[in-house]
Amino acid sequence: MTPDSLYAISLIAENCPGVLRDVASVVAAHNTNILMVQQSIIPCGPNRGKASLYFELEGGEDRGLMIADLVELHCTEDVITYAPFSRIFGSRVIIIGGGAQVAQVAMGAVNEADRHNIRGERISVDTIPLVGEDDLAQAVEAVARLPRASILVLAGSLMGGEISSAVDRVRQAGIPVIALKMAGTVPKHADLVVTDPIQAGVFAVMHVSGKAVFDIYRVRGQEF
Amino acid sequence: MTPDSLYAISLIAENCPGVLRDVASVVAAHNTNILMVQQSIIPCGPNRGKASLYFELEGGEDRGLMIADLVELHCTEDVITYAPFSRIFGSRVIIIGGGAQVAQVAMGAVNEADRHNIRGERISVDTIPLVGEDDLAQAVEAVARLPRASILVLAGSLMGGEISSAVDRVRQAGIPVIALKMAGTVPKHADLVVTDPIQAGVFAVMHVSGKAVFDIYRVRGQEF
Repeated sequence: MTPDSLYAISLIAENCPGVLRDVASVVAAHNTNILMVQQSIIPCGPNRGKASLYFELEGGEDRGLMIADLVELHCTEDVITYAPFSRIFGSRVIIIGGGAQVAQVAMGAVNEADRHNIRGERISVDTIPLVGEDDLAQAVEAVARLPRASILVLAGSLMGGEISSAVDRVRQAGIPVIALKMAGTVPKHADLVVTDPIQAGVFAVMHVSGKAVFDIYRVRGQEF
Repeated sequence: MTPDSLYAISLIAENCPGVLRDVASVVAAHNTNILMVQQSIIPCGPNRGKASLYFELEGGEDRGLMIADLVELHCTEDVITYAPFSRIFGSRVIIIGGGAQVAQVAMGAVNEADRHNIRGERISVDTIPLVGEDDLAQAVEAVARLPRASILVLAGSLMGGEISSAVDRVRQAGIPVIALKMAGTVPKHADLVVTDPIQAGVFAVMHVSGKAVFDIYRVRGQEF
């Protein structure tokens, strides 16, 4: 499947039951895969109260014909085609931990992503500062379900317990984990341990980049 | 609709046509709204090649009964309940622009979000460094389609043209826009113009917070 076979559409529709079923049936009839759907009620403006649906789609034979069939559904009012989020916001570096350290890792990651995005890549840097074992463990585990999450950096001074179990599950889902050098068991569960938060952010972006030569799995278990 | 009526489930299913239709039918039969669906093929591990579906759902009468009906579908193998992303990652502050300035705005926003999240809120700070009018305009416009995007900060030294039109469309979608003081027409289209990037990040988080007293619409058109 080439990247070009991925695209996005949005539709405005009446807010009535069965819209998703009707749209999904048209999409399936054109042998197109649905990768993502978001539905919401439009809160303001001329379409207030109507449903907005956003789809990311892959494959299919005749995109124009499918869109024409969607326009003909009695419930839909407007169909617009977009580039998918993967081509706009790209791969996501996720940074979770204490505010002071999350900000420093983000600085390293944003500046490194800038250098890559200037050359045509798309790497974004997404963060949440949090405290407490339970809240951190829940957020870490949820990274495995986040769309386009490509690497996780844990930025703090003390993390262990349930957070370490969550790190294991994220890595099992295929997402590598970098930890700052810190107290607690998390560094033992991470792929890479980094002392300098700026460098941790740079490493994370270098791993995600399709153009850099760095691969975290070639330095797994090391500490810098 | 109370926040508690929002929840998430994931299912592992055979990768065959009609899974989404079958699941959506069960969900609709229980008077439950689908807010978001993500589908992907599991790339590794014991479930490799199977489909993973993630749903965010709202309302419905008997959640347990609905999940039991989902488990009974012949295509599904496993159904797990989660907290939805809104309760884990919360409202999103989005920062777009040049790397050096995005990093500074992020530092202000992450540190301010830390203070709020310690008190039980959930505010995340998501960024992408980009250059070029077309790429920036495309990213800015896409913010209106991003789930949970609550405010946008444009961090750069020169932005105008198509980017200003995109700012207008994002604001029409109900998302306020802060611009750094910069050359180009973007500051004229923003709700608020801020000179210091750290303060711009702090303002953005203060607006999103449910606990802070700041409301961007009470200072609209001002410059700091």
